[in-house]
Amino acid sequence: MTDVATNMRLKLPIICFILEIILIILFGVLVQYNEETDAKEWHKKNHSDYENDFYYRYPSFQDVHVMIFIGFGFLMTFLQRYGFSSVGFNFLIAAFSLQWATLMQGFFHGMHGGKIHIGVESMINADFCTGSVLISFGAVLGKTSPVQLLVMALFEVTLFAVNEFILLTLLGTRDAGGSMTIHTFGAYFGLMVTRILYRPNLDKSKHRNSSVYHSDLFAMIGTIYLWMFWPSFNSAITAHGDDQHRTAMNTYYSLAACTLSTYGMSALTAHDGKLDMVHIQNAALAGGVAAGTAGEMMLTPYGSMIVGFLAGIISVLGFKYLSPILEEKLKIQDTCGVHNLHGMPGILGAIVGAVTAAVATADVYGDGMKDVFPDVASGKVDASYQGGIQAASLAVTLGIALLGGLIVGFILKLPVFGAPSDTICYEDNIYWEVSGLQEQVPPG
Amino acid sequence: MTDVATNMRLKLPIICFILEIILIILFGVLVQYNEETDAKEWHKKNHSDYENDFYYRYPSFQDVHVMIFIGFGFLMTFLQRYGFSSVGFNFLIAAFSLQWATLMQGFFHGMHGGKIHIGVESMINADFCTGSVLISFGAVLGKTSPVQLLVMALFEVTLFAVNEFILLTLLGTRDAGGSMTIHTFGAYFGLMVTRILYRPNLDKSKHRNSSVYHSDLFAMIGTIYLWMFWPSFNSAITAHGDDQHRTAMNTYYSLAACTLSTYGMSALTAHDGKLDMVHIQNAALAGGVAAGTAGEMMLTPYGSMIVGFLAGIISVLGFKYLSPILEEKLKIQDTCGVHNLHGMPGILGAIVGAVTAAVATADVYGDGMKDVFPDVASGKVDASYQGGIQAASLAVTLGIALLGGLIVGFILKLPVFGAPSDTICYEDNIYWEVSGLQEQVPPG
Amino acid sequence: MTDVATNMRLKLPIICFILEIILIILFGVLVQYNEETDAKEWHKKNHSDYENDFYYRYPSFQDVHVMIFIGFGFLMTFLQRYGFSSVGFNFLIAAFSLQWATLMQGFFHGMHGGKIHIGVESMINADFCTGSVLISFGAVLGKTSPVQLLVMALFEVTLFAVNEFILLTLLGTRDAGGSMTIHTFGAYFGLMVTRILYRPNLDKSKHRNSSVYHSDLFAMIGTIYLWMFWPSFNSAITAHGDDQHRTAMNTYYSLAACTLSTYGMSALTAHDGKLDMVHIQNAALAGGVAAGTAGEMMLTPYGSMIVGFLAGIISVLGFKYLSPILEEKLKIQDTCGVHNLHGMPGILGAIVGAVTAAVATADVYGDGMKDVFPDVASGKVDASYQGGIQAASLAVTLGIALLGGLIVGFILKLPVFGAPSDTICYEDNIYWEVSGLQEQVPPG
Repeated sequence: MTDVATNMRLKLPIICFILEIILIILFGVLVQYNEETDAKEWHKKNHSDYENDFYYRYPSFQDVHVMIFIGFGFLMTFLQRYGFSSVGFNFLIAAFSLQWATLMQGFFHGMHGGKIHIGVESMINADFCTGSVLISFGAVLGKTSPVQLLVMALFEVTLFAVNEFILLTLLGTRDAGGSMTIHTFGAYFGLMVTRILYRPNLDKSKHRNSSVYHSDLFAMIGTIYLWMFWPSFNSAITAHGDDQHRTAMNTYYSLAACTLSTYGMSALTAHDGKLDMVHIQNAALAGGVAAGTAGEMMLTPYGSMIVGFLAGIISVLGFKYLSPILEEKLKIQDTCGVHNLHGMPGILGAIVGAVTAAVATADVYGDGMKDVFPDVASGKVDASYQGGIQAASLAVTLGIALLGGLIVGFILKLPVFGAPSDTICYEDNIYWEVSGLQEQVPPG
Repeated sequence: MTDVATNMRLKLPIICFILEIILIILFGVLVQYNEETDAKEWHKKNHSDYENDFYYRYPSFQDVHVMIFIGFGFLMTFLQRYGFSSVGFNFLIAAFSLQWATLMQGFFHGMHGGKIHIGVESMINADFCTGSVLISFGAVLGKTSPVQLLVMALFEVTLFAVNEFILLTLLGTRDAGGSMTIHTFGAYFGLMVTRILYRPNLDKSKHRNSSVYHSDLFAMIGTIYLWMFWPSFNSAITAHGDDQHRTAMNTYYSLAACTLSTYGMSALTAHDGKLDMVHIQNAALAGGVAAGTAGEMMLTPYGSMIVGFLAGIISVLGFKYLSPILEEKLKIQDTCGVHNLHGMPGILGAIVGAVTAAVATADVYGDGMKDVFPDVASGKVDASYQGGIQAASLAVTLGIALLGGLIVGFILKLPVFGAPSDTICYEDNIYWEVSGLQEQVPPG
Repeated sequence: MTDVATNMRLKLPIICFILEIILIILFGVLVQYNEETDAKEWHKKNHSDYENDFYYRYPSFQDVHVMIFIGFGFLMTFLQRYGFSSVGFNFLIAAFSLQWATLMQGFFHGMHGGKIHIGVESMINADFCTGSVLISFGAVLGKTSPVQLLVMALFEVTLFAVNEFILLTLLGTRDAGGSMTIHTFGAYFGLMVTRILYRPNLDKSKHRNSSVYHSDLFAMIGTIYLWMFWPSFNSAITAHGDDQHRTAMNTYYSLAACTLSTYGMSALTAHDGKLDMVHIQNAALAGGVAAGTAGEMMLTPYGSMIVGFLAGIISVLGFKYLSPILEEKLKIQDTCGVHNLHGMPGILGAIVGAVTAAVATADVYGDGMKDVFPDVASGKVDASYQGGIQAASLAVTLGIALLGGLIVGFILKLPVFGAPSDTICYEDNIYWEVSGLQEQVPPG
């Protein structure tokens, strides 16, 4: 199965080394410790050590980190012969993306005297941006070379930062858990890329585009970690105090409700009343996605549960009825079904956020309004206008994601990146030394 | 292997949807953010953000969360053909239980103007109650339908909250890590349920009631996570400061000592001097169970080690000598051996807690007495009386667990819940779409 | 495959019970709660609960704990028939080592009125010392009995504490993340032990000294956890505030850069331009090792990235070119390649630390100097002298590790510990009941 086109001996080292050297140079020129990580600056001020943002956010950061590297990585190991690539390419592109995101987000979020200042909050934001790239990776999983993935990450991180800048800085949108900036963006970007990379003869690899028993169990490791730590994800960069606390709790209940509706819908729609692992692995997480925008708001616990409940239903329905249509009619080959886990639930989350923002009142938020809706608290806009901004932000995100995916998709079609042919997709052996291979070939 | 009786197409969706809709309605009527998660209430007071209970407890909460979903879920994947159900049903009933527990515990622990107030501490308590249900799940593993499990969870959570109310509120019992309320209760409740559900012809499924190589490795993921995070479990709801700190450390040493006695006893008792994975996966955890009550007390490090050391010994002996007797003489088919991991070590923990409480002195506890034994510090009772209360609480717990399990066991026998027949127990294929099945059938 | 020599029925119980009973007695005589875990002492002082060191360090401790038990344990499951032993012996010797390390480190780090005072910081230090033992375990993996491993741990922990005392206390060396004390020490100690235990006929077990598909995926669980939590490892015992924050961030960027150079080098050097799982599983972690000493210093983000970048390169080159030479010429059979992951990157980290220390200025560190280089801040030494101390510490560490390994290697050669013969190395079945074994034998 060795092929000149897919041989990575020179392509992968060249891109890895060039990218990393550029990163190092740019970090050297542009990046500095912020006031909380710099030995001199921190000690200049008269504050207690426990006021350092590290203690507010580092546990959440580590949970997010686990979601990015274990969660996404193992969720994608469900394919029978693509576990090395799922975890391994996830690892590679995440390690690149978080560095590049530090620069891009730092550039757009505001420089300090020509320098980007970094600390735990920028680390979380970099991981968030990385998450968006990994969502897109899910759409093209099994059909792309690691070089293509790095190129995709390079452009996607940049566009992510642009979209995030427009929303959070220019428009004043609230999206702490990223229903729009992370999930909707990553999903529709990836869906457009996979549409452009459409492979008419992909059915030649169809026998590998499925799971085996233990690969499904490995994938459940990813699912469960994503599910457990989603409260940390949505609350990681909200304001200190009640905001982080409330966001985590809203997400917890949204996910719990989503799990019940997912199991119910899976048994209802799947073959012979049996549960389908694809639904459990993915749709049960939709409650986290859908609580991404409104999670920090006064959504109420039962409001969070309604959101999660609906997210689970639409996600399972998407897997069952919409994905086949997308593939057959729209030629969108979405390996992991990111449209069902991140696309539709992301849009749902954006809508819920817009509605929740529009009905915010001083009576409910009190002095906490300034943390959740600073522009409303300051009188710059009223709540219904904030709701309108939230809705408009969804449209902006969809536009940038689809247009960006279109352009990047065509770039990735250039025949120099070592993509696998249609007959050898979903196959680790293309890019990895695989030992004990005979054991792995299923008998049928 | 499709069968009308076990077909879940209507049964599972109906119960999932009804339960979740009831939960949402009750949450809407009864549940509110507490003072630390409500935007208005938190900002009313003059306090610093780092005083929010979120920062004291959220890292512990996430560790507990991992124990519930990864720990229990994967620990039970040791069965060769029941991995999907182990992780998947664990996931389902935990997601339901934590919601229902929020209501039941909130109701019994004290309403605020007719409302249940929630925050990170109630989330931890809900996860704790869920843990008890999952212990019972271990006893009936492989022999129950997901509908039965949800029904069991519905009743068990309710009874758990009643028992917890009697102990913690009425009697003033101390049981921060739940040797009694969680482990003893969950174990004996589950053992009684499995006794009532006794299957005389279960040996027809005997060939599936064992592990294969990789299923044992998956189970070790569960074991190790439970082991590592047990210090967080026992300390999650103890008082701030020295109490959380001490409890975590006591548990750490108890578990370490337990591991050595487990390995020693396993080699001593198992076939040919070889270690038995069942012992390692389970008995090495008994030190955490046994430190559940006394962990917050001034147990001393070496006291903790003695407790763990004994717990490991009795747990291995239980697996080796007691479990076969329970099965043959008492007709208790305890799939995971919860009697050895949670039952006996839970009782040991209760006794250790009673003794440690009885010998507490102001000389040792100083002003810290009010955190550990508030009733002793206030002069309401003396230490030996507190010890007596602790011992009585064990009896109460055993009584409620056994009686509850008896009643619930008979409810679960109703022939409408889709339980598998004796010939197809311990088999994922009953309730799950299983791909690549041929690969999984062992040759022998 | 049962053999009198390797039968553990008496040997393992005897050593486990004797060691644990000695530990309990010594803990009873010597160990006390410190001021932050003792109920009376903590409440004597007028401080806030959030000032308890538990809240500064416990989340980091738990991350380190995961690295020790899941990270090291699963990293070593790559061998096709040695998964039980990898996770299980890792578990056993870690549970022993952390107890013994509490005593040894407490003894050398300073007694308080004849007592060792313990709390979360001593727990982290005990886990660190355990990590060093597990590194040595990696060198001898597959070729040693659990009794040998416990004996090795007993001596290695002791020598670790001696070396750590010389460096940190006598010389005033800075090594928060343990490039020297943990990684260099553990690696060269283990390499010397495996040299002494050289097996000329080990090729008789060669067919088992390799991975299969799913064993490599299990190993990736270990790798990814080590990678994710290394920032917590290096920052776990640095000073509160900017120091913990900065150390975590430096390590984060070092690891990210290391990952890109590892993938590049792996494709460049491996067969047919395909990636080699051995490199990804190990070399991608070298950036954490190499940032162990300088991570707390003002290394700058781009400096951290350069260090990680170089560490990845030398580690892959080590696996590809140096390991075969070590085995053939120097008779060092290094199962996990610890020389490439911990040995050379540890030395690199020591050198980077020495250079970074030597160039430290008050202009860069300000009042933060006292946290990072207390002896420089107090005027006891100047920066270049501190750099010299750092370099000398590397030499001391290498000397004690090699000499200690030599002696302990000869002790382990005593024919009473039940080591496996050359024909049955890398085989779980020697020490474990293995069910479903037939399934596991590869056809070829």
